[in-house]
Amino acid sequence: MPSFAPITVPTAMRAIVGRAGVVTVEEHPTPTPGPGQVLVRSLACGICGSDLHMVHHYDEMFSKPRPGDPAPGDPDAGNGVLLGHELAGEVVDHGPGGDHDSVPAGTRVASIPFVTVGDGLRQGVGTSRRIHGALSEYFLLDEANLIVVPDHLATQSIALAEPLAVAIHALERGDVTSDDTALVVGCGAIGLATIAALRMRGVGTIIASDPVAHRRSMAETFGATQTVDPADADEYVALEESSEPGRAVILECAGVTSLLRPMIDRAPARTRIVVVGVHTEDLTMQPAMAMRKELDLRFTFYYSPENYAEAIDWLASGDVDLAPLVTATVGIEGVDDAIQTLSGPNDHIKIIVEPWRS
Amino acid sequence: MPSFAPITVPTAMRAIVGRAGVVTVEEHPTPTPGPGQVLVRSLACGICGSDLHMVHHYDEMFSKPRPGDPAPGDPDAGNGVLLGHELAGEVVDHGPGGDHDSVPAGTRVASIPFVTVGDGLRQGVGTSRRIHGALSEYFLLDEANLIVVPDHLATQSIALAEPLAVAIHALERGDVTSDDTALVVGCGAIGLATIAALRMRGVGTIIASDPVAHRRSMAETFGATQTVDPADADEYVALEESSEPGRAVILECAGVTSLLRPMIDRAPARTRIVVVGVHTEDLTMQPAMAMRKELDLRFTFYYSPENYAEAIDWLASGDVDLAPLVTATVGIEGVDDAIQTLSGPNDHIKIIVEPWRS
Repeated sequence: MPSFAPITVPTAMRAIVGRAGVVTVEEHPTPTPGPGQVLVRSLACGICGSDLHMVHHYDEMFSKPRPGDPAPGDPDAGNGVLLGHELAGEVVDHGPGGDHDSVPAGTRVASIPFVTVGDGLRQGVGTSRRIHGALSEYFLLDEANLIVVPDHLATQSIALAEPLAVAIHALERGDVTSDDTALVVGCGAIGLATIAALRMRGVGTIIASDPVAHRRSMAETFGATQTVDPADADEYVALEESSEPGRAVILECAGVTSLLRPMIDRAPARTRIVVVGVHTEDLTMQPAMAMRKELDLRFTFYYSPENYAEAIDWLASGDVDLAPLVTATVGIEGVDDAIQTLSGPNDHIKIIVEPWRS
Repeated sequence: MPSFAPITVPTAMRAIVGRAGVVTVEEHPTPTPGPGQVLVRSLACGICGSDLHMVHHYDEMFSKPRPGDPAPGDPDAGNGVLLGHELAGEVVDHGPGGDHDSVPAGTRVASIPFVTVGDGLRQGVGTSRRIHGALSEYFLLDEANLIVVPDHLATQSIALAEPLAVAIHALERGDVTSDDTALVVGCGAIGLATIAALRMRGVGTIIASDPVAHRRSMAETFGATQTVDPADADEYVALEESSEPGRAVILECAGVTSLLRPMIDRAPARTRIVVVGVHTEDLTMQPAMAMRKELDLRFTFYYSPENYAEAIDWLASGDVDLAPLVTATVGIEGVDDAIQTLSGPNDHIKIIVEPWRS
């Protein structure tokens, strides 16, 4: 382990704060790690579709008080959501009693985006109004959750472990094995990471569907064996034709609710449909159709620490390289522009923020 | 095997025929078994909720031609749906080349309700307009599907193997193990058979929910460890309180679509919801709710031959006794009245038809 010069932590820092429809850069006091916590400098953080959801659906998601929210009168009570959960960091300080030997200052670390706060509540890093996310210059993590990252792994790739963990978990939720034929609907970052995970799990036939040509081309890079433009061909017929009975699985990675009903209506019999995308609208479906075909609808959310650790392992081994996902890198002042860009039609897959840049 | 006097098969028979909202008794030619088929005398046949569905939703279910339907001009073309799939029969004749030694005339048999017709199509016994169901005096089965039933098993219990197979299959669809805590919503025949199957699978806590007191009482008879009147208490809170995290399963056996959305909204996190009931209405649900809780919605339809054989084994061993389900026995002329009774508020669980009775 290389040794580093002591890091001087400033008393104030910049943090990205999301509120209904907008994000702003605010100056906040740098957090102080408590027992069991470390203070981490954010080295890189991906912008995720769920960050856009939190900003655009801020009122419905954050209007009701949630466990761990700052109390009225608390200095944090005026906070919006403190974004950033696709994290890569560098330890800069330990809380009282911390293990300076195992993870000395300067160590690059990965972690699931959760931290235990003083009152024992587990808070989401990047989804909370109380604790800072990785779109802040500094944020807190639990020392127990840290994964020390090998030196050869690029910092931006550490941040990409998060969507890969989502993909690994989605496959676990779908009980996906190498006997399955998979259809991935939607080839954004999650869809592409899912294709990479399917390849790692030994799935021989991976059909990828997306209306955008360059995303289909990316899908092939990541391991899709067949791509479908839904304007030209029927991805569900393709799935039926290439799967053994009862061995079809659909990974819904588009987050477009209007796709779910036709998916249910057209999926082959006994398909496991894993809903990975985030859906805020209601779904109206025909249970009779799902019944006659004995479909499963399996909804997925986050991942386990084991899924996340496996994602880091895959990236560190070089077996999976998600670096081609990154289509832009911006500093902290570029986040608002990036979020506005990603909220409209755009050609990006993944924008990485390096908050230490202006 | 006892020997029986030869059975004289009449050339005409009575058959129950369902059409939009009504059932009638018609006189039809007695079917002739083809190669691989046997002709069976119907000894007993349960009336199922899906029989009511086929009658009351006849136009939407049977208006489009389906594979195997009688062609225009075919003498069967005017048929309605030939009901009866919860079957118990007695072999009376074999098709050409049939095995008279293994299943001589007079043998009581069970079978999955499917038969292969001349052109290789598999047709549902009791759900077809082409071949007769077990609510006819005689009907056809595939010799290969016959299960010879031990003499000590009551004939009506053979008919009850069908709903028990549905229950066994539902548990298979839900990957139910003895580590699970189960909530059965709706304690009609399928719900009660499901409770019996859960007990057989070693599930320790079985919560049964039904608004009707005598059904809750039946649920206790069949193995429920706790019953809930949903007007008085919250069955989903009961499930959460008594299940280990991730080990809750709901068996939806009510077939009431309006129950599904509150079920999704109130189920504990990571519940597997197995939809066993038949639903003809649309369901509007919140994917976001199902996502945050990582729910599964697993739809189920029929059962495998193995599930059906296991049901016969359980009944024959005496480990499961479904005879208390039977609340009335009628002859073939009583079917219309029975279906009208079952279509309104009523206290029945299962009405068995003995088509050989008037």
